[in-house]
Amino acid sequence: MNSLKNLNIQPIENGELRKLLQHNIDQKTKPVGSLGYLEELALRIGLIQESTRPELKSPVMLTVASDHGITEEGVSPVPPEITWQQVNNFINGGGGIGLFCKQYGFDLYVVDAGVDHDFEPHPRLIDKKVRKATRNFLKEPAMTQEECDKAIQNGRDVVALFAEKGSNVVGFGEMGIGNSSPATALLSVYTGLSLEECTGPGCGLDQKGIQKKSGVLQQAIEKHGILEKPEANLAAYGGLEIATMVGGMLEAAQRRMLIVVDGFITTSAFLAAYEICPTVRDYAVFSHCSKEHGHVKMLNYMNGRPLLNLDLRLGEGTGSAIAYPIIQGSVAMLNEMTSFGEAKVYNVVDETGNIVTK
Amino acid sequence: MNSLKNLNIQPIENGELRKLLQHNIDQKTKPVGSLGYLEELALRIGLIQESTRPELKSPVMLTVASDHGITEEGVSPVPPEITWQQVNNFINGGGGIGLFCKQYGFDLYVVDAGVDHDFEPHPRLIDKKVRKATRNFLKEPAMTQEECDKAIQNGRDVVALFAEKGSNVVGFGEMGIGNSSPATALLSVYTGLSLEECTGPGCGLDQKGIQKKSGVLQQAIEKHGILEKPEANLAAYGGLEIATMVGGMLEAAQRRMLIVVDGFITTSAFLAAYEICPTVRDYAVFSHCSKEHGHVKMLNYMNGRPLLNLDLRLGEGTGSAIAYPIIQGSVAMLNEMTSFGEAKVYNVVDETGNIVTK
Repeated sequence: MNSLKNLNIQPIENGELRKLLQHNIDQKTKPVGSLGYLEELALRIGLIQESTRPELKSPVMLTVASDHGITEEGVSPVPPEITWQQVNNFINGGGGIGLFCKQYGFDLYVVDAGVDHDFEPHPRLIDKKVRKATRNFLKEPAMTQEECDKAIQNGRDVVALFAEKGSNVVGFGEMGIGNSSPATALLSVYTGLSLEECTGPGCGLDQKGIQKKSGVLQQAIEKHGILEKPEANLAAYGGLEIATMVGGMLEAAQRRMLIVVDGFITTSAFLAAYEICPTVRDYAVFSHCSKEHGHVKMLNYMNGRPLLNLDLRLGEGTGSAIAYPIIQGSVAMLNEMTSFGEAKVYNVVDETGNIVTK
Repeated sequence: MNSLKNLNIQPIENGELRKLLQHNIDQKTKPVGSLGYLEELALRIGLIQESTRPELKSPVMLTVASDHGITEEGVSPVPPEITWQQVNNFINGGGGIGLFCKQYGFDLYVVDAGVDHDFEPHPRLIDKKVRKATRNFLKEPAMTQEECDKAIQNGRDVVALFAEKGSNVVGFGEMGIGNSSPATALLSVYTGLSLEECTGPGCGLDQKGIQKKSGVLQQAIEKHGILEKPEANLAAYGGLEIATMVGGMLEAAQRRMLIVVDGFITTSAFLAAYEICPTVRDYAVFSHCSKEHGHVKMLNYMNGRPLLNLDLRLGEGTGSAIAYPIIQGSVAMLNEMTSFGEAKVYNVVDETGNIVTK
C-alpha cells in the first residue's frame, strides 16, 4: 500500500547509550533495580530519544472516532448515535478523556476517521473522515484496501503534523460504538486464538449478547478468511479509527516519538501496526490492562507489560492519560534524582548483594 | 497502653451518602462501572470525608526513620549508617522520596523515630527519637512496652499536628536499614504464615542471606513467642519507625484522613494498626504491591487492593507518591467529569446491558 511506503522503523538498540543510561540509573541513591519498571521505562525513553537526558515534550492525545457497519448485527447494546454525541462532548472538554487530559496535561484532539455525522468545524476536531462508517463486515469487507490505505495515511499525516509542532509523546484512544467487534476479530485473526477466547462484553453485553457477537464474528471470518497480509485483515475486519491509529502509531515510531497505548480497541490497532512492522513495539508504552478480557491476550502476544491494572474499560484514551504521570516520574528519576556522589551516601549494595563503597 | 486511649475509629459506612455518591458516579458520561477501581476509590473518599464533593487538601508525606538492633545479626547487606545518610539526603530534597514528593505534590517531612545519629535541626526533620535504635530482638524484645507506647503516641501527635494545619491526606513511608526483618516477623506473628513464606531479600540479600535471616527470625519468635495483644508483638518484634507509623495511621483514620500506604515495611505498620483496630482499613489506599514477596501476603490478608504493581521495592514512601495522581484523578472524576444531562449524551447502557435513555 502507498501508505506503508517509506516506512523504516529502526529498533532502539544502542549498546553504548544503553550502558551509559544504565550506569546513570544505577548511580541514583537507591538499591540497584529498586524502582522496578520505572527504571526500565526511563532507560527505554532515553534510547527512543537517543539521549541521556530525555524530555517529554508537548504530549498530545489523539482520540480517533468512527462508526461501524457491523452494529447492524446487534453486536453492541448502545446505539451508534453515541459516537457523534461523545465526540461533541470530548471536543468541549467533557467525558472521561476531556477530564483526564486536563488532569494529566495532554493536549486533546479528536480525529474524525469515519463518524456517521456531519460536524460543525471545531478547533479540537480534525476532519479525516474517509467515509461515514465502515461496511458491515458480516456481508462484505469493512473497508476496501484503498479506504484502509487512506485511513492509515491520514493517521500518519496527523501525527507528522504534531511531531513537526514539537510533540514527542502521543497518546492514542478511540470512540466508536461497535468497535470491540473489529478489535476482537483482529485479535483472533492475528494471533490465531479462537473467538470464544477473544470475545468479551465490550461496553456492556450480557452473556447471551457475547455469544451472539462471537457467532457473528465467526461467520465473518469464515466468509473472508484469514488473509496473508496484515493490512488485508485490517481492511476486511477493522475500523476506520483503528486503521487511522495504525498509521499514527507507525509514523510516531518512525519519528522516534513515545507512543502511549490505551485499552482493548487501541491495542488492536497497535497489534495491527506490530504485525506490519514489529519494531514499532520498541516505541510503545502499554498504559493499562483493561477489564475486557481479550486485552491481556493481546498484551501477552506482544510480550507487553501494562503500567496499570485498574479494571478500566472506558477507552477514549483514558488509560493513556491516567498512566502518564508514571511515565513522567520515570523520566524525572533519570534526570533529577540525586546520585551517590551528590548526596553523600557512600555505601550501596550491588545486584549480587555485596556492599560497594563509592 | 496510654497511646491507644481515646481511640475510636468509625467505619465509613453511610447508606444514604453511598447511594448518592454512586448515583453521581453513574451519571457521568461513560458506561456504568467503566472506570473500574477509580470509581470505587472516589466513592470511598466521599464516604471518608462525608461529602459528595470531597477535596484532597495539603497532602503530607511522613517518611519515618529508625535503626534496628537486629542488624547485629547480619540480616541486612548494607551498613546501618545508610539510615542517617539517607535521612540527610531526603530532607534536602534528594533520594527517591525527595524527588517524587516534588514531582507529585507532597509536602515531605522525615520523622526521626529512632535513628542512631545526632542530627542538626532542620525544618523538614521532626525529632521524635525514642532511643537510638531498637534492641536486638534475637536477644531481648526490640522495645519495652513503654517505648513502643511512646512511639505510637509520637505518631499520633505528628499526624494531629498536620491535620490541624489542614491536611486531609497523609502518605506514609520509611527508612531504616534492617527493617525488613521486623516487618517480616510481624507478618508472620499476625497472620500465622511461616517465616519461610514471609522472608524475602529486603534491599538485596541473596538466597543464602534470606535463609540466614529467616533462621534468625525463627529463633527470635521461638524465644519471645506469639503474644496475645497486637501491641505486645509490635514491641517485641517491631521497629520504632513502624510503631510511630502505627500511631500515625490510627490517628489519621480517627480524624477521617485518607491514608496512603507504601510498600512492605509501611504495610507491616498498617497490619499492626489493623490488628489493633480493624476499622482503620476503611481509610487506607494501598499504593502498590512491592516486589518483596511478603507484601502481597499482607495485602491479601487484609483484602487490600494495590493501585500499582511496578516491582518497586525502594520504600521511603515512593509508592505512595507515585500512586497519588491516580487518587487525584478519581476525585476529579467525581467532581468535574460531565454527566449525561450536561453533555447532551442521552443514551447509555446500564449494568445489565439495557439501554437507558436519560
